[in-house]
Amino acid sequence: MQEISPAPNEGTRSAQRRAAIVDAATTVFLRQGYPAASMDEVAKLAAVSKQTVYKHFRDKETLFVHIIQGMMTSADEAIQSASGALGESEDLPRDLRTLARVLLDSLRKPRVLQLRRVVIGEAERFPELGRSYWDLAFKRGIDSVAEGFTRLTERGLLAAPEPEIAAHHFAGLLLWMPINQAMFCGTDDLPDPTEVDHLVEAGVTAFLTAYGR
Amino acid sequence: MQEISPAPNEGTRSAQRRAAIVDAATTVFLRQGYPAASMDEVAKLAAVSKQTVYKHFRDKETLFVHIIQGMMTSADEAIQSASGALGESEDLPRDLRTLARVLLDSLRKPRVLQLRRVVIGEAERFPELGRSYWDLAFKRGIDSVAEGFTRLTERGLLAAPEPEIAAHHFAGLLLWMPINQAMFCGTDDLPDPTEVDHLVEAGVTAFLTAYGR
Repeated sequence: MQEISPAPNEGTRSAQRRAAIVDAATTVFLRQGYPAASMDEVAKLAAVSKQTVYKHFRDKETLFVHIIQGMMTSADEAIQSASGALGESEDLPRDLRTLARVLLDSLRKPRVLQLRRVVIGEAERFPELGRSYWDLAFKRGIDSVAEGFTRLTERGLLAAPEPEIAAHHFAGLLLWMPINQAMFCGTDDLPDPTEVDHLVEAGVTAFLTAYGR
Repeated sequence: MQEISPAPNEGTRSAQRRAAIVDAATTVFLRQGYPAASMDEVAKLAAVSKQTVYKHFRDKETLFVHIIQGMMTSADEAIQSASGALGESEDLPRDLRTLARVLLDSLRKPRVLQLRRVVIGEAERFPELGRSYWDLAFKRGIDSVAEGFTRLTERGLLAAPEPEIAAHHFAGLLLWMPINQAMFCGTDDLPDPTEVDHLVEAGVTAFLTAYGR
């Protein structure tokens, strides 16, 4: 079988090339937007052949959805972890503040905001991208928070008989202003740490007054 | 002075041409996005010369900002009227529901949602468009609602010592889920009338519990 096995470090090299393609594609998509980005340019920037790009990713859409998934994974893990801890909380205001900060942290990631803009800007022409973002990023975060609220309601610490709506309310109280400001006015105009503290306090207080027991 | 005055109905004709330009430009901007839209195409679709377009609008940006203003005027008047009535309310839950429906009504206007997507998609390359939208559409609506809440707080019917934050909270409770769904998943997936009723009830109830006296 020796002759058809890959060379010992072929797997590593393939993984490196894949990472280079993803990195190059992220730059190209965020700089040019989805429609103008070409697989040629991705190949050139990644210093691989166009065939290599297509060997790893079937088409432009597959590559873009992969980037959405990758960028959202760390945010998603942080939300899941904070929501899980919240469900078992012994100090509800403290743990709600922690979750609030996790949600607001996404604002400090310019690439996440840029990606969000590209997806929204193209959602009409490329509805499958918007749908992927909704399912992989938006909806998944809401579901994690809703699970935490379900557990808190079972434990008698929260009155959220509709945990999914309560999760949207929590996110809306915290993010409505700053995310819209970031979408329309760009990252130069994000809330500074003092403002973030104030947004967290105001949002968590309103939520606890509305949903606490 | 007769010879340099315009013909009696020149003013009307000029206004008609201006309206035709705005109408054509709206179609072109929403179909192609801002960067790809050209003044040539606007002129062609409006059946006027390119010089006529430039006589009315100095450049593409001025024309686009004019469209934002025009599209937002009716939404803005509805928000102002509902917020003004809210300030003098004798039935707070009822008048909050009315304002909530006015905010949710923007979801039923596909052109407003398309415009919002175009602006967000281009906010990085054309920050002045995003800034105009924020000032003319987003911020103005929040300010009207905040005025209503200030009046209600003065009258002892609401406890909103930071009326602007309370206005963002009200908007976030109602709009976070449906506007994001509309942005990412398009207008095919908007809440039906029963869901709208449910969103209004849930949002107004949470707000009144958090901010009512």
